[in-house]
Amino acid sequence: MIAYNPSEELDRPMTISKAGKISPLDPAAEPFYRQIYDRFRGAIANGLLKPGDRIPSARALTKELGLARGTIDTAYSLLAAEGYIEARGQAGTIVAPGLKPRTAIAIPIRQASRSAAATSFRPDSILPFQMGLPALDEFPRKIWARLGARCIRAIQPSDMVHPSVFGLPALRSQIAAYLGVSRGINCSPSQIFVTSGYRHTIELIAHSLLKAGDRVWLENPGYPPTREILRHMKIEAVAVPVDHEGMAVSNGFRLAPRARAAVVTPAHQSPLSVSLSLPRRLALLDWAKRSDAWIIEDDYDGEYRYVSRPLPALKSLDRDGRVLYSGTFSKVLLPSLRLAYLVVPESEVERFEQITEALAGGSPRLTQAIVTAFITEGHFARHIQRMRKLYAERRVAAVAGLESVLGKHLRIDPQPGGMHLILRLQGRRSDRRLVARMREEGLYAEALTDWMVGSDGASALLLSFTNIGSQRAAEHLGNQLLRLM
Amino acid sequence: MIAYNPSEELDRPMTISKAGKISPLDPAAEPFYRQIYDRFRGAIANGLLKPGDRIPSARALTKELGLARGTIDTAYSLLAAEGYIEARGQAGTIVAPGLKPRTAIAIPIRQASRSAAATSFRPDSILPFQMGLPALDEFPRKIWARLGARCIRAIQPSDMVHPSVFGLPALRSQIAAYLGVSRGINCSPSQIFVTSGYRHTIELIAHSLLKAGDRVWLENPGYPPTREILRHMKIEAVAVPVDHEGMAVSNGFRLAPRARAAVVTPAHQSPLSVSLSLPRRLALLDWAKRSDAWIIEDDYDGEYRYVSRPLPALKSLDRDGRVLYSGTFSKVLLPSLRLAYLVVPESEVERFEQITEALAGGSPRLTQAIVTAFITEGHFARHIQRMRKLYAERRVAAVAGLESVLGKHLRIDPQPGGMHLILRLQGRRSDRRLVARMREEGLYAEALTDWMVGSDGASALLLSFTNIGSQRAAEHLGNQLLRLM
Repeated sequence: MIAYNPSEELDRPMTISKAGKISPLDPAAEPFYRQIYDRFRGAIANGLLKPGDRIPSARALTKELGLARGTIDTAYSLLAAEGYIEARGQAGTIVAPGLKPRTAIAIPIRQASRSAAATSFRPDSILPFQMGLPALDEFPRKIWARLGARCIRAIQPSDMVHPSVFGLPALRSQIAAYLGVSRGINCSPSQIFVTSGYRHTIELIAHSLLKAGDRVWLENPGYPPTREILRHMKIEAVAVPVDHEGMAVSNGFRLAPRARAAVVTPAHQSPLSVSLSLPRRLALLDWAKRSDAWIIEDDYDGEYRYVSRPLPALKSLDRDGRVLYSGTFSKVLLPSLRLAYLVVPESEVERFEQITEALAGGSPRLTQAIVTAFITEGHFARHIQRMRKLYAERRVAAVAGLESVLGKHLRIDPQPGGMHLILRLQGRRSDRRLVARMREEGLYAEALTDWMVGSDGASALLLSFTNIGSQRAAEHLGNQLLRLM
Repeated sequence: MIAYNPSEELDRPMTISKAGKISPLDPAAEPFYRQIYDRFRGAIANGLLKPGDRIPSARALTKELGLARGTIDTAYSLLAAEGYIEARGQAGTIVAPGLKPRTAIAIPIRQASRSAAATSFRPDSILPFQMGLPALDEFPRKIWARLGARCIRAIQPSDMVHPSVFGLPALRSQIAAYLGVSRGINCSPSQIFVTSGYRHTIELIAHSLLKAGDRVWLENPGYPPTREILRHMKIEAVAVPVDHEGMAVSNGFRLAPRARAAVVTPAHQSPLSVSLSLPRRLALLDWAKRSDAWIIEDDYDGEYRYVSRPLPALKSLDRDGRVLYSGTFSKVLLPSLRLAYLVVPESEVERFEQITEALAGGSPRLTQAIVTAFITEGHFARHIQRMRKLYAERRVAAVAGLESVLGKHLRIDPQPGGMHLILRLQGRRSDRRLVARMREEGLYAEALTDWMVGSDGASALLLSFTNIGSQRAAEHLGNQLLRLM
């Protein structure tokens, strides 16, 4: 269980004593360096080791544990690289003084090396309310490990060569079949390009269809990395406002009728979670057809709708081959897989093949093979169904818990789906300042203001509920948040 | 064993009869769809099923094997996607008529969908003489599977989030330590950026340090994908000739003194395998310092030198932080891992971090974790040592076998290292035409002419020896080649 539940704080196993004594390692488990690394990290997260505490020298620990010096050095260099410990020459090695003691599950992955409120827009830590993460406690680890071990044991010479840069043929077939059934998209495996994530997808599209100086409509507010990637590729972003029907397409017409593309999140707008209305969808498709422009549909969490069945993708309405559909396994499986995909209109397949051949590194065969097996054997469809039900429950619990504590200070948007809540702050309170304070206390949030170009005065926190295990947990965290307001 | 040995052609197990009957599957082995797929592929490679042969309908096979229809459909769609079979509507499903019967191990991965002599410069098939592949028969599969199963069983919530886009900290540490010991490079883990392959490495460098319109020296002949990537990024390649001391640096000064960078393969020039002489190394470093230019060192196979110890990397002489070092696990481990890395000068780390944060997808955690464990536990160093010895032997055997048969028609370059041979063709024979004929017969080769800009009249075949198991095997393949000359 990693879903946040306050009672668990009490019974965490103690494996490193205050003086840094380490309990015996298990030779059958993970490599020793990893066990040592995990124990120190755990001890720091638990508060058993505090900032400034001295830990044993690598030499002393080598001797004590009877292991190779290299093993200890690896563990220590890893801890140092992640900012947990610092070598202080003659003074020995200490727990990094800047580290804040974390609450509960708050084990920072790289936060220590960043300013408290810096946001990479990648789910790279597991603080409470961390955005962009699926429910980690409910990931089917055993099935996954079984399939993984089988795939890796079965490796044949033909699995050792460079995998197709377009993606494993079997995976492309499975994705095409899944999209047909679940997202209403009719496409062939040759239209699917496997990528290493959303950013890679956008970069591939930009290399293939756009050029420096082109203008592209982006939703405002909208997912900040899109703007960042386009900026690096010297493509001009045009901020188009979002209202209760999604991107205000008519504003796009007015602001930049000759734009070459529009990036939209039709299922649940990112971050406001509204759905793009049918008239807007049709207007957008019509504009794209008339202007030979492209629509880039980012369907990052289209599966997670709780009020009714998931909406079909905008791509399912695309009669003229103007929509590029971007999907990902980060939300429905795990971010650590680094697997996403792009559906390209039939007419553009050859161009994307050329660009992919020239520029793409390709994804490792093993992760693609495991995901293929996971889909083929039916686990994927079952997992999505289970998560849809779980998230619906966790969403209700999180809203109830937070509202019971914080109801006077904020209002939570009603939303049909998605993986996060939008907490509108009352008065003129700064979301950025509150987020910075939350991060200092080991709570995650993002500020709506950081997702906007300019400002309409909206001030809101974006919080994920996917790893909040119960209403009580939400209340507990709400109380922590209340103290910061 | 996959190393080519002619006697093995005879005792291949027969699992699919002429009529497409399939022997019982093993429920404990790979997924059924994979077993079916492998058996059909094997039967086609063996010649048991020939182009145009009809195979059972999916429905009939479903019934015969008592499996789910989806299982058979997956196997068939995979076979179709790779070009082995074709659905012919009413006429049923047949083995693709265009498929050539392959000799021995010649199982094409995607060749069927390409013209016979097309070259992607990626080792994506396992034809005899396939370039760019390590010895697949000697890869330590059991150790790898054991480490892999352990890594995947040990997955923790902190392993499920987005891994650092710079690379797993433990892997960066291990790479830095390895480079210090083996390649004479002194760098910290923070200077290491893990990428998904050489192309990704070059793209990252171009995004970080170059701009459209810049000029870059490339070796001529040289690895064609480098030129291709730069062309896509609107960077002008300047072809600098290569002689027996490597890139003729003085020509670079004359042709484009203000170039922003030079890409070199100092250990074994790609493809001529000569080493860049020390005076040239120093002249290049001096030019880079004086001109604020960058040297991109592609050390793809620096470990594989057979006449003496591997030469230290050019980067080891870099006192002024002008060298970017590009390494890869494709040659020393496997191409299917899609793991490579870049060492960035200290002064440029922040810039590369920004570009990586903005554009990179990151590599999956699992493959990085397995490679980390493989290095940490000493398997990596042992494997490289074993391969160096094996390749030295296979190189001698391949040269002896080919020369005994083809000595009158060609001359094999003496080379200090590398993973391929250079067969100089006598007279005015076209290497391109010979390569096309070889591909038609299921033999791999690349034409030196395809690695050149312009022509100096040189005509040569590039052939890898890493998977040629014995002198007899080389003679056998030499005789096949002789018939094409």
